[in-house]
Amino acid sequence: MPEDTVHADTPAEARIAAARGSRNDHTRRRNLSSLLTAVHYGGPLTRAQLTRDTGLNRSTIGGLVAELSELGLVVEDAAAETGTVGRPSHIVRPRRDVVALALHADVDALELGAVGIDGAVLARRRANLDAPPTPDDAAAFSWEAAREVAAELGGVRAAGIGAAVPGLVGIDGATVVDAPHLGWRDVALGERLRGALGIPVVVGNDANMGLRAEWSFGAAKGVDTVVYLNGSASGIGGAALVGGRMLRGGRGYGGEFGHMMIRSDGDRCSCGRRGCLETEVNAALLDEAAHDAAALDRFAEVLAAAIANLECAFDPDAVLLAGYLGALFDVRRELVTDQVRAMAFRPDAEDVVIARAALGGNRLLIGAAERAFAPLLRDPAGTALAALA
Amino acid sequence: MPEDTVHADTPAEARIAAARGSRNDHTRRRNLSSLLTAVHYGGPLTRAQLTRDTGLNRSTIGGLVAELSELGLVVEDAAAETGTVGRPSHIVRPRRDVVALALHADVDALELGAVGIDGAVLARRRANLDAPPTPDDAAAFSWEAAREVAAELGGVRAAGIGAAVPGLVGIDGATVVDAPHLGWRDVALGERLRGALGIPVVVGNDANMGLRAEWSFGAAKGVDTVVYLNGSASGIGGAALVGGRMLRGGRGYGGEFGHMMIRSDGDRCSCGRRGCLETEVNAALLDEAAHDAAALDRFAEVLAAAIANLECAFDPDAVLLAGYLGALFDVRRELVTDQVRAMAFRPDAEDVVIARAALGGNRLLIGAAERAFAPLLRDPAGTALAALA
Repeated sequence: MPEDTVHADTPAEARIAAARGSRNDHTRRRNLSSLLTAVHYGGPLTRAQLTRDTGLNRSTIGGLVAELSELGLVVEDAAAETGTVGRPSHIVRPRRDVVALALHADVDALELGAVGIDGAVLARRRANLDAPPTPDDAAAFSWEAAREVAAELGGVRAAGIGAAVPGLVGIDGATVVDAPHLGWRDVALGERLRGALGIPVVVGNDANMGLRAEWSFGAAKGVDTVVYLNGSASGIGGAALVGGRMLRGGRGYGGEFGHMMIRSDGDRCSCGRRGCLETEVNAALLDEAAHDAAALDRFAEVLAAAIANLECAFDPDAVLLAGYLGALFDVRRELVTDQVRAMAFRPDAEDVVIARAALGGNRLLIGAAERAFAPLLRDPAGTALAALA
Repeated sequence: MPEDTVHADTPAEARIAAARGSRNDHTRRRNLSSLLTAVHYGGPLTRAQLTRDTGLNRSTIGGLVAELSELGLVVEDAAAETGTVGRPSHIVRPRRDVVALALHADVDALELGAVGIDGAVLARRRANLDAPPTPDDAAAFSWEAAREVAAELGGVRAAGIGAAVPGLVGIDGATVVDAPHLGWRDVALGERLRGALGIPVVVGNDANMGLRAEWSFGAAKGVDTVVYLNGSASGIGGAALVGGRMLRGGRGYGGEFGHMMIRSDGDRCSCGRRGCLETEVNAALLDEAAHDAAALDRFAEVLAAAIANLECAFDPDAVLLAGYLGALFDVRRELVTDQVRAMAFRPDAEDVVIARAALGGNRLLIGAAERAFAPLLRDPAGTALAALA
């Protein structure tokens, strides 16, 4: 502590130094966080770029980069060619052996990835399944797959593991309250994975994690008010960013747009209600309709009606479509966009971007890893990493 | 400035004193804000209660109360009877001559109120109208009514005026982008009212202001995730609190739940779409059905379906119903509650409170005044009041 290093016989200077020491320590940790966060979102950056992105001066950056290097989080190497006269610029890169693990438990597969600080999926394992996995399956697979990806990468240090689950996850980030497609109810998945892997765990709804990934590295970068709809084998997941914060709801169950009613006389949904969006447009129906233009038009109109409803509620800057809804949008882009704008009662409907999500098959792994990286990014010097080999 | 008051020949002490002075000034202003905010939400309070509510010690409170008194914001008087031995407790009350004005422009009336720091409506004027008011009507009425309520109250000092409008209000808090029931489009209402009254103006969507009032003083006190639906002559307004923050959306148009589709083969809405909530349940239909039990059941079921949809999206802790939707809920409380719970696919649906809003006819005036009071509550010493007589 700084208090131990000052001279007690000059109390005024001592108090200044103590205050400065404590403030400096706080400032230093915040600056380390800014720097690692800049590298996280920006990838390899020169010191000049880091100066630009963090607002810190170059000499401060030098000390912070040295400290992040000592912590084993970044490496710095000379750039091959800068094209300018003068000293070669140094490039700060995240260390490739620092990862977050990410698990995606879906109805027909388990997948685990090791994701680097820059959001790159470095290695992955996938098990295709005939039946939905049990929580024990998920824990056993995670243990095995974590060992395999760690070995493939020559050993890693993990900040933790994020798990994406298609269902309601408690606000504690640990309990799967109800994942009907998996048949999981009140499953303490956080505890089980922590028991299996011995590293910090955060569990989240798959759509929330998908949107988080798109916000960090994909189609929602730079957009703070976003509605997200993803169609998958386990139905339609939804999520929303409201003023830059994930919509969670009182218990963590917000954003279940797949169960909003879209046809009042529609078919019975697995949730017991009628005409839910995920009952009216789903993978099976779209497969059947693959070569039926009229049917595809109809599904596109349903999707447009759903988007128009969500626009009323959220006034988003962007609507992102993923999975089979992204595929449907790809083949009926104009119809969906025109219908949404025709249905909008607001004067500037054309300002709302409707787009396909960008990250494809890596999305959920990246999003789950984002959650697991969060404590390290907040406090790089104070967050322990666990060696896996 | 503190820098001027310290001795330049003792630089270390000088720096401490300067730092402390600047910090003290910041702290003092923040404490003044805490104290006035406690009186705002808590009404007349003893010093002991202020100590409890703000976490400040009694001697600090004494100085702050004296400063708020000098600023003309509170008065302190001896309590009549405390029932305990010892010095009589002093009660700190908001001064009754400090107000925010509040305007509600509706399709069939203009109303202006003077609202006290404690949220009490102290005086009001209302003009019932045969046709929707123009922006000029609203400005002229505001000027006249402000003079009248100021005279009635023996002169007031106003923090500003909040204006509640049934329609889309820009995120600038000044422009009515589209209020279809009033026929207003791109109206710079903030500028007009400021021109008429010469005090700060904030314009907002009526439902947002209604929910804000309920959150401050009504049925949503202590609840941070809330969905609000209000039925009035100008349709159904909606609003939501998401984690303690008002849902605004990218442009300020969030929460338009009255235009979410609730019946896919429903009637054409004034917005051009079909089966919007406000087309399926509205004042005219409810008037016709007043003595038709089966029709009321049907409307209650539509309301329940809308609430179930909003629960999927927002996972609220509470759903508040106001205006004619509150009246419908009063006569079909059990039916609505049972239907919502039957439709919920979440395991703890009974945790969601469905309730009638509490503040009745004062709601919009109180909510609009809340917005106008906000700068004063943030910085009581730095916010000017305008004398009106």
